[in-house]
Amino acid sequence: MTPPFPPPDWIAVDWGTSNLRAWAMGADGVLAAATSAEGMGGLTRDGFEPALLRLISAWLVPGRVIPVVACGMVGSRQGWFEAPYRTVPCAPLDRSALVRVPVASDQIALHIAPGLKQTQPADVMRGEETQIAGALALMPGFDGVFCLPGTHSKWVHISAGEVVSFQTFMTGEMFALLSEHSVLRHGMQGAGWDDAAFEAGVSETLSRPERIGAKLFSLRAEGLIANLQPAQARARLSGLLIGTELAAAKPYWLGQSVALIGAEALSRSYAKALALQGVDATVLPGTECTLAGLATLALKLEAIR
Amino acid sequence: MTPPFPPPDWIAVDWGTSNLRAWAMGADGVLAAATSAEGMGGLTRDGFEPALLRLISAWLVPGRVIPVVACGMVGSRQGWFEAPYRTVPCAPLDRSALVRVPVASDQIALHIAPGLKQTQPADVMRGEETQIAGALALMPGFDGVFCLPGTHSKWVHISAGEVVSFQTFMTGEMFALLSEHSVLRHGMQGAGWDDAAFEAGVSETLSRPERIGAKLFSLRAEGLIANLQPAQARARLSGLLIGTELAAAKPYWLGQSVALIGAEALSRSYAKALALQGVDATVLPGTECTLAGLATLALKLEAIR
Repeated sequence: MTPPFPPPDWIAVDWGTSNLRAWAMGADGVLAAATSAEGMGGLTRDGFEPALLRLISAWLVPGRVIPVVACGMVGSRQGWFEAPYRTVPCAPLDRSALVRVPVASDQIALHIAPGLKQTQPADVMRGEETQIAGALALMPGFDGVFCLPGTHSKWVHISAGEVVSFQTFMTGEMFALLSEHSVLRHGMQGAGWDDAAFEAGVSETLSRPERIGAKLFSLRAEGLIANLQPAQARARLSGLLIGTELAAAKPYWLGQSVALIGAEALSRSYAKALALQGVDATVLPGTECTLAGLATLALKLEAIR
Repeated sequence: MTPPFPPPDWIAVDWGTSNLRAWAMGADGVLAAATSAEGMGGLTRDGFEPALLRLISAWLVPGRVIPVVACGMVGSRQGWFEAPYRTVPCAPLDRSALVRVPVASDQIALHIAPGLKQTQPADVMRGEETQIAGALALMPGFDGVFCLPGTHSKWVHISAGEVVSFQTFMTGEMFALLSEHSVLRHGMQGAGWDDAAFEAGVSETLSRPERIGAKLFSLRAEGLIANLQPAQARARLSGLLIGTELAAAKPYWLGQSVALIGAEALSRSYAKALALQGVDATVLPGTECTLAGLATLALKLEAIR
């Protein structure tokens, strides 16, 4: 099968726990994109190469080796091939630390970007370092704080192009567990949303974070005896959790220049919560940052492929 | 089949979301006990009576009607038959509010004890009111605070034999979700425990409850890069969550007489956490309190069966 475009110069891959996303990249940017649910979490070690080839084989050309640059959990100890963490403070990406992964196919040359670790307090990231590098490529000279909302949201202090420190919050995973697997799920079916309930949740825990434990069950109780609606319950849960995160992350955002990197709807929620605290945050699309970050590595791959 | 004891005077039933427990009761107390996993959560409305009879049929006698007194989620709207909440402040149980449930069997007369609700802030309980009544029967004249640790732990202010106010925390459910279903599960397999890690977790969030969001992920990060052991991680997670609960429940326990009602190991953890704050809590076994509470109702059933 011949692809409907010239062969890509390189292939960008973002391989997380739940999903695998790939982009065929040409001189002018994205030629094609593909996604599968074959995330790191569901694969054994010998399942990675077949999963990747299933997704990108239409972009490959016999007799030619195309560089593939991947970031994310694919480089973890439980992933395809371990790319050892680099230690902050350091630049988010460094092409000399790229890990070349042995593959059976003679049509790809695979490189994985390492994540970052912080020794004290202990923290780690894999994938976000690439988005940070991309954001810095899109906003050269940025000094301040990146917030990357998501399953495990990250607050990152940037100075002079380096990651100085960072902190991870389990806010997104907590929202998923509580809204889908806890007793609260009964009162928040559907995808409804209520801005006022979100904002009330944020203020509640931002000003009194110790109340998070007590306020969660009130969502269930108000559903049972005070007619709380699912859209209000969902939005208030999100607000309570994001407010708790913002209370703990205050040293990061207070009086700082903040840019949000992530999925649009979630970034908008964080931007609204920050605006309530008088912080006007820039919003950068997560996928653009991932691609811009991987591109900073791919530009130099000709020499090492 | 003839049971190895005289027919029970009555049968006590604690029917929660996950389990069904029953006791054959005689003049001197428990004659026999039985448990099944047929909790309210897994049953449709017409499945309740067969599930109960499967468990207690060996205790029944042809030609005789034995009173059965039940508490717990069996009386919720999603349960067998709704026993509408009573509103606090009120005594934990009131036999005139017992709900008689129609049954097909001519060998039992079933009564369900209603739960309690609090209008502002909204809160509810089902099952704990029976343990509270039992604890008051075991400690007549108690004025102070009961803490009932569990999936949804409750703090209850008691005065003059009445429940004045209460507050629910999702601490137990959060521990289960985080230790079994979140990314943290990778670092806390097994049933190990480390007292020092538990105590460190309690102090951390009790003094700075806003850090709960940030401290959770550190369990994962320290497992990856600082060799945190599973027993330490489990115990610290429990400590962090209980510390957050204690921070919010401080108005309940500070300077108060506190009694813990619940499963032994969990109550011991709460007692230790409270002892670190200078609070010397009494510990009462949960099952004894349940039976003593149901007995306060059963004593009067002769008249209404």
